Amino acid sequence: MNIREEAQKMKLDAPAMASSSIEMRNAALRAVRDALTAGSGEIFAANAKDMAAADKAGISDSIKKRLKFNEGKLRDVLAGIDELIRLPDPLGKVLLARELDEGLRLYRVSVPIGVIGVIFEARPDALVQISSLCIKSGNCAILKGGKETSETNRTLFRIIYSAAAGAGLPKGCLLQAEQHNEIDELLSCDRDVDLLIPRGSNQFVQYIMNHTKIPVMGHADGVCHIYVDRAADLSMAVPVILDAKTQYPAACNAVETILIDRPAADVFLPTLAKAFSDAGVTMRGTKEAADAIKTCGYDCGVMAEDEFHREYLDLTVSIRLVDGVKEAVSHINRFGSHHTDSILTEDDGAAEYFMQMVDSAGVYRNCSTRFADGYRYGFGAEVGISTGKLHARGPVGLDGLVTYKYKLFGEGHIVGDYAEGKRQFRFRDL
Amino acid sequence: MNIREEAQKMKLDAPAMASSSIEMRNAALRAVRDALTAGSGEIFAANAKDMAAADKAGISDSIKKRLKFNEGKLRDVLAGIDELIRLPDPLGKVLLARELDEGLRLYRVSVPIGVIGVIFEARPDALVQISSLCIKSGNCAILKGGKETSETNRTLFRIIYSAAAGAGLPKGCLLQAEQHNEIDELLSCDRDVDLLIPRGSNQFVQYIMNHTKIPVMGHADGVCHIYVDRAADLSMAVPVILDAKTQYPAACNAVETILIDRPAADVFLPTLAKAFSDAGVTMRGTKEAADAIKTCGYDCGVMAEDEFHREYLDLTVSIRLVDGVKEAVSHINRFGSHHTDSILTEDDGAAEYFMQMVDSAGVYRNCSTRFADGYRYGFGAEVGISTGKLHARGPVGLDGLVTYKYKLFGEGHIVGDYAEGKRQFRFRDL
Repeated sequence: MNIREEAQKMKLDAPAMASSSIEMRNAALRAVRDALTAGSGEIFAANAKDMAAADKAGISDSIKKRLKFNEGKLRDVLAGIDELIRLPDPLGKVLLARELDEGLRLYRVSVPIGVIGVIFEARPDALVQISSLCIKSGNCAILKGGKETSETNRTLFRIIYSAAAGAGLPKGCLLQAEQHNEIDELLSCDRDVDLLIPRGSNQFVQYIMNHTKIPVMGHADGVCHIYVDRAADLSMAVPVILDAKTQYPAACNAVETILIDRPAADVFLPTLAKAFSDAGVTMRGTKEAADAIKTCGYDCGVMAEDEFHREYLDLTVSIRLVDGVKEAVSHINRFGSHHTDSILTEDDGAAEYFMQMVDSAGVYRNCSTRFADGYRYGFGAEVGISTGKLHARGPVGLDGLVTYKYKLFGEGHIVGDYAEGKRQFRFRDL
Repeated sequence: MNIREEAQKMKLDAPAMASSSIEMRNAALRAVRDALTAGSGEIFAANAKDMAAADKAGISDSIKKRLKFNEGKLRDVLAGIDELIRLPDPLGKVLLARELDEGLRLYRVSVPIGVIGVIFEARPDALVQISSLCIKSGNCAILKGGKETSETNRTLFRIIYSAAAGAGLPKGCLLQAEQHNEIDELLSCDRDVDLLIPRGSNQFVQYIMNHTKIPVMGHADGVCHIYVDRAADLSMAVPVILDAKTQYPAACNAVETILIDRPAADVFLPTLAKAFSDAGVTMRGTKEAADAIKTCGYDCGVMAEDEFHREYLDLTVSIRLVDGVKEAVSHINRFGSHHTDSILTEDDGAAEYFMQMVDSAGVYRNCSTRFADGYRYGFGAEVGISTGKLHARGPVGLDGLVTYKYKLFGEGHIVGDYAEGKRQFRFRDL
């Protein structure tokens, strides 16, 4: 397959996709849901092949959990599709309506972005979620999933595509890329692809960002922090920190660095060190933090200053003591990745300062960083999480897949009349 | 001046700028307005030096009009500042408020982008507009204006900066870059600068886009079209087209290509050709169009197909005959630059098809493309016009200078409870 030619064809189909009615897009989603239900046997059989290959390749159990596509995961993605069907149409929303002068009316109306390329990790449920989000939002999408689930992906895509096109969506609504070299071809399609959403390792996302002129939405790093303030309710601190570090350490929204306000350290550090130790979490910290932890009788490595940039993605954590919320915010803005950061405190002033001054997509008070997720935000699903500040920030659901256009209706209006003072603008919101 | 160091300092001031109250930002705008009024003598004296240098350099009258900063332009920018002061605060708007579960509340709140670099043409009024928009929106800004008005820019900037800082805004609120080599330094500040807005020639904007990792908002080309449908009211077609082509031909929203529906050509072409000829507009077209125009007794060059990508920025126009609105839309989506395109028609169906299917920031019916402008849209002013589809599209005012962050308030909530089924999300919009 020649991705460049296919992307060109898709671009030509994009306006028709954008104009499809919400009835047709919802009908397509219902058809996808029914076809996935009817095809579950095929899908599980394909997944069994992928799992056998994973066994052969000696892939770890934790990764195999992601590759697996079983009854439970099918049920979850079907529930996600039902949720998407229930959500209102993200297209055609009038975001601004203004009369500029008599007979001259301006409207800002939501429209799809157009053609989106999504490159994602080996997780079959992601393929279903991403294609459903693109169908609902009227975008054409090129999907490239991780090769470890290629059999499952191929079967899922065939079922989804045939249901969507069968429901009347344009031929170019969805396309699957299967070869790794097609990624580089996709990166060169800046005339036809409007947006790329890469998911995966820091290195992979950086590679994408550095090798294309297409706008990229997503995140390379998830260096998330929890700051334990002097006014924290320490009884909630340990469960929140353990959840953020251990509930799913490979996730981008898992916490990497714990900052502890010095006045809280004496009381809190022994409890925290014991909890980390019991949970099998390796501790590293500044010399000050490491010494204090060792005094409590636990191991803690000493780390260099610039290692605080590090995303571990496993059961390791960085620890530092700070002097209050101001120093915590400085540390986070300097070493963080603008993803999600949480303050634990009962002090409203400290919380307000933290949430105002931390320059991240998500700023939390008294809860785990792991809530940064489209499903948990009630978006139905997400295509990814953005740490960029333009367009969409944080978990990206339907809202992040639309843009707008301005429609201006006149009766022969010309600018010369206003430039020469024959007419004046009389702005009036409608 | 070391731009990289200054940008780092500015980044540290950005959270304080973002947290400044609307009272302080409006007070700063009032102080800027008053200081500009009080300093008008100085400003005009500086501008006189720039104008003398322009005379010496033999710069054309049409460009000198842009360099000039006189009573009239001062009045216009002061009116723009007053308009900005009246506009509501773009920051702190709650864009989404949702209870995820008991005691767990999510808010999407508008915040400034952070540090913005704006590189603009030699037009002193632009410096005032851009700095006012950045002050109102709580962004820190690095400004680099065209060198032909360096004396005026320096005086304006000194007055504006001292008024803004005097009103209590952080030291790093505004910075002026004056040397051309500082542009390249600015392009390398991707850790500290969140957004670049370049204005100027196609070549210059392309250079910026190709030499930085910082997100860029703006447009390289303004290849705008007017399509004269078979159902057009031909009496409005000539004035609208003349306005779009001749009222300010160097503007990005001036029309470059006229598409004429074949059934309208016989009647309309002779009138249009005469009007263009009388206005001194050079006509170029497909062989078909050129032959028809020559038959009417006017000159028309024959152009190659791929020249329809061309932005003339002067009194030259491309002409093509098409078969109806579908072919017009195909031409525009293929050869246009997604800026602004207009259909002239009394047929609602044709207008709706055109405005739905043309993939541009502005789609117009029965009016001139020259209306694509922040002031004319009632935004008070604009920092630029975006042909990109992400974040902001079309004229960019205050709305395009803000992003959002998610604030999540909990009471010790952890994700593990939901993963294990101990708790369920109960989404409820607040």
